[in-house]
Amino acid sequence: MFLVECVADLTPERRRSVLARANRALPEVVSQTQAILDRLLESPEYETAREYRSLKPNLSPSDLLVTEEEIAASNAAISPELKKALKVALTNIQTFHEAQLERPMWLTEVSPGLIAGRVTRPLAKVGVYIPGGRGAYPSSALMNIIPAKVAGVKEIIAVTPPGPGFLARPEIVAAAHLAGATKIYKLGGAWAIGSLAYGLNGLPKVDKIVGPGNMWVTAAKLAVYGEVDIDAPAGPSEGFIIVEGHYDPEIIAWDFLAQLEHDPQASAVLVVTSLELADAVAKIVAHETVHLERAPIINQSLENAAILVAKDINEALDLANEYAPEHLQIIAPDALSLLGRIQNAGSVFLGPSSPIPGGDYATGPNHVLPTGGSARSFSGLSTDSFLRKMTFQKVSSQALRELTPTISALARAEGLIAHAKTVEIRALKDQD
Amino acid sequence: MFLVECVADLTPERRRSVLARANRALPEVVSQTQAILDRLLESPEYETAREYRSLKPNLSPSDLLVTEEEIAASNAAISPELKKALKVALTNIQTFHEAQLERPMWLTEVSPGLIAGRVTRPLAKVGVYIPGGRGAYPSSALMNIIPAKVAGVKEIIAVTPPGPGFLARPEIVAAAHLAGATKIYKLGGAWAIGSLAYGLNGLPKVDKIVGPGNMWVTAAKLAVYGEVDIDAPAGPSEGFIIVEGHYDPEIIAWDFLAQLEHDPQASAVLVVTSLELADAVAKIVAHETVHLERAPIINQSLENAAILVAKDINEALDLANEYAPEHLQIIAPDALSLLGRIQNAGSVFLGPSSPIPGGDYATGPNHVLPTGGSARSFSGLSTDSFLRKMTFQKVSSQALRELTPTISALARAEGLIAHAKTVEIRALKDQD
Repeated sequence: MFLVECVADLTPERRRSVLARANRALPEVVSQTQAILDRLLESPEYETAREYRSLKPNLSPSDLLVTEEEIAASNAAISPELKKALKVALTNIQTFHEAQLERPMWLTEVSPGLIAGRVTRPLAKVGVYIPGGRGAYPSSALMNIIPAKVAGVKEIIAVTPPGPGFLARPEIVAAAHLAGATKIYKLGGAWAIGSLAYGLNGLPKVDKIVGPGNMWVTAAKLAVYGEVDIDAPAGPSEGFIIVEGHYDPEIIAWDFLAQLEHDPQASAVLVVTSLELADAVAKIVAHETVHLERAPIINQSLENAAILVAKDINEALDLANEYAPEHLQIIAPDALSLLGRIQNAGSVFLGPSSPIPGGDYATGPNHVLPTGGSARSFSGLSTDSFLRKMTFQKVSSQALRELTPTISALARAEGLIAHAKTVEIRALKDQD
Repeated sequence: MFLVECVADLTPERRRSVLARANRALPEVVSQTQAILDRLLESPEYETAREYRSLKPNLSPSDLLVTEEEIAASNAAISPELKKALKVALTNIQTFHEAQLERPMWLTEVSPGLIAGRVTRPLAKVGVYIPGGRGAYPSSALMNIIPAKVAGVKEIIAVTPPGPGFLARPEIVAAAHLAGATKIYKLGGAWAIGSLAYGLNGLPKVDKIVGPGNMWVTAAKLAVYGEVDIDAPAGPSEGFIIVEGHYDPEIIAWDFLAQLEHDPQASAVLVVTSLELADAVAKIVAHETVHLERAPIINQSLENAAILVAKDINEALDLANEYAPEHLQIIAPDALSLLGRIQNAGSVFLGPSSPIPGGDYATGPNHVLPTGGSARSFSGLSTDSFLRKMTFQKVSSQALRELTPTISALARAEGLIAHAKTVEIRALKDQD
């Protein structure tokens, strides 16, 4: 039976353990991944053929591209329900991401005659990794591809590991194609990341790589960072659920279980203001877990979970800010008004009809969110992730003359004489 | 004498070498830095005191903080010209960065009853590294601190390596204080980065670390990435200058030299449409270099430089987009109208009175910009660098009921049964 605790009674050690998240370290994986990348750079086609020899002997780069026929077959292979669901989700995700776009170009007069501004450009080429093994998530294809498309990225290259028959999973291919991938390649792990980062195996060299993956994918992304941009590091999923007052314990129990079924290292914290509700939820969680196919996963992730009773909503919100959750769900009267109290969270789910799985799939906001407390530093994936901002300045000769003493003094203080000279000489010649 | 070449006549190898930038590798530095960070985590005060024993025996953490007295002494130590220049630069940088701020909060109706939006929060604590050795750049303090301040960051912790007498450089202290640093610590290298990332030596643990530094600082930032956010990797400075038609060769020569005096690994490319201008600039560059204190640096960086003649402005702009320069200066009639042709650049300097050093110091846009071609993937530093965006959603029970088949189909396709259950059960209970 799951232990219900009071926030106020947590020992410092227990409080730390509630706030802690499982740390997915990358031990020997880093050097193994670097070795693959080194071999790949040396001889990309040989190294890739070697890796996939059991799935497809004598693999050549032209086998990697998912053909029009394979896309059509994938679309035919998925159920009508899934196809419709992908379309509804696509519409909502697209609508929300279109609303994110800010001024594409603006300028301001910094001082008379000194105009400066900023212009936004989409990345030219983006790579999206979509896992294809045990956890094949078509929603990942939507969430990573749609923001790139909305941002205006022209080439969106999806990569996903092939399975038996050297085929990609049909639901992944269908979702990636629907979302707007311009090409889909069957390639996984460090082989995929390296091919995208360096432009090997017939894949174009991209400007940024996004998308979830296992330890090897994560290590490979970190290894190529700088050569290309990558998305923020992501760990196991986590949810922080707050309920003020009374609410149906069965519903809360399922909200809690949903956060724990992802992964043995997932975390969930439930904070309620009613001891009665806490006890009832704990009972239902224990009872329902037994019947779930994912019971072994949940039994492990329950060790990173807590059901807590707070004296009021403020105590609950303070703990949430300290936890900085990926997902923060709040069931409370007038939940929207509490937004101003939330400092650290990836995405916030307000009110009784906004369970976290809604946002995982279909409400519109992105489900790629900062985990492990990194919501203090990072934002979730958005159109911004695929846009670059170039600044510009246009200075009149009069405005430059007025700025000359400033530039000159600073450049000379830093020992950069040519920097000073090139503005001073303009002022001099201007007077002639 | 510097060789003038035609863009059209460049061999593929020479073109590659013009486009290439010096690669500042981090060889054994990575493991040395990790060793420092490991020792620092194990015993921060001992490790730090050991490092600075020659500058200050028996260092204690309380010695690290720059006191009010040291700030006052620093302000008194710098020249009135420099003080005034810092203030003018501050005003312009602040004005431009205030203009960057986008909607702090917005929402949209994704579908009837489904509201989703985004709210912006500043980072709580930021660390800013300001080099203090040979290249002490007070402008770095302004450029890294002001955007954080404008974004609303409450705690801005500046760190800078101490020099003789265990004192920080007065111009750095004065600039950091003026720009809005809430605390300034005398600490450099991996010791500073580690203390900021882990909250050691009496420094607060920050959410992000920005600011330039040598190889060790860069390696330390990469090592703590994930624990905290860091700014984009930065290499040697570079400028790409385009001149269409005729212009004063002396001015262009100084623009070119200014790009080369930073660093032996700096790069500069000048592309003009007039062979006569190219020859004249090459002569002046050769002639003036001899007289400069930084001649040894420039003689080295000239090896990464080129003076090219293009057949027209389009050929020049194409090469610039391929180069993806940190700084792109364009002297041409109606230069603003060429902005639409520029895909890849950190910051663009338009017209005859907008030399790059203007933006290095005082026009307003940030001088922390993507280098080495990474303008394809990254933006320069801005208020965005210090803001996090939290999404939120608030779904009505009716809207959730309409989304239930979508969420349910996707969750079940991904094997996440509790995800499906928690929306299905709401729909069921809602009907009761």
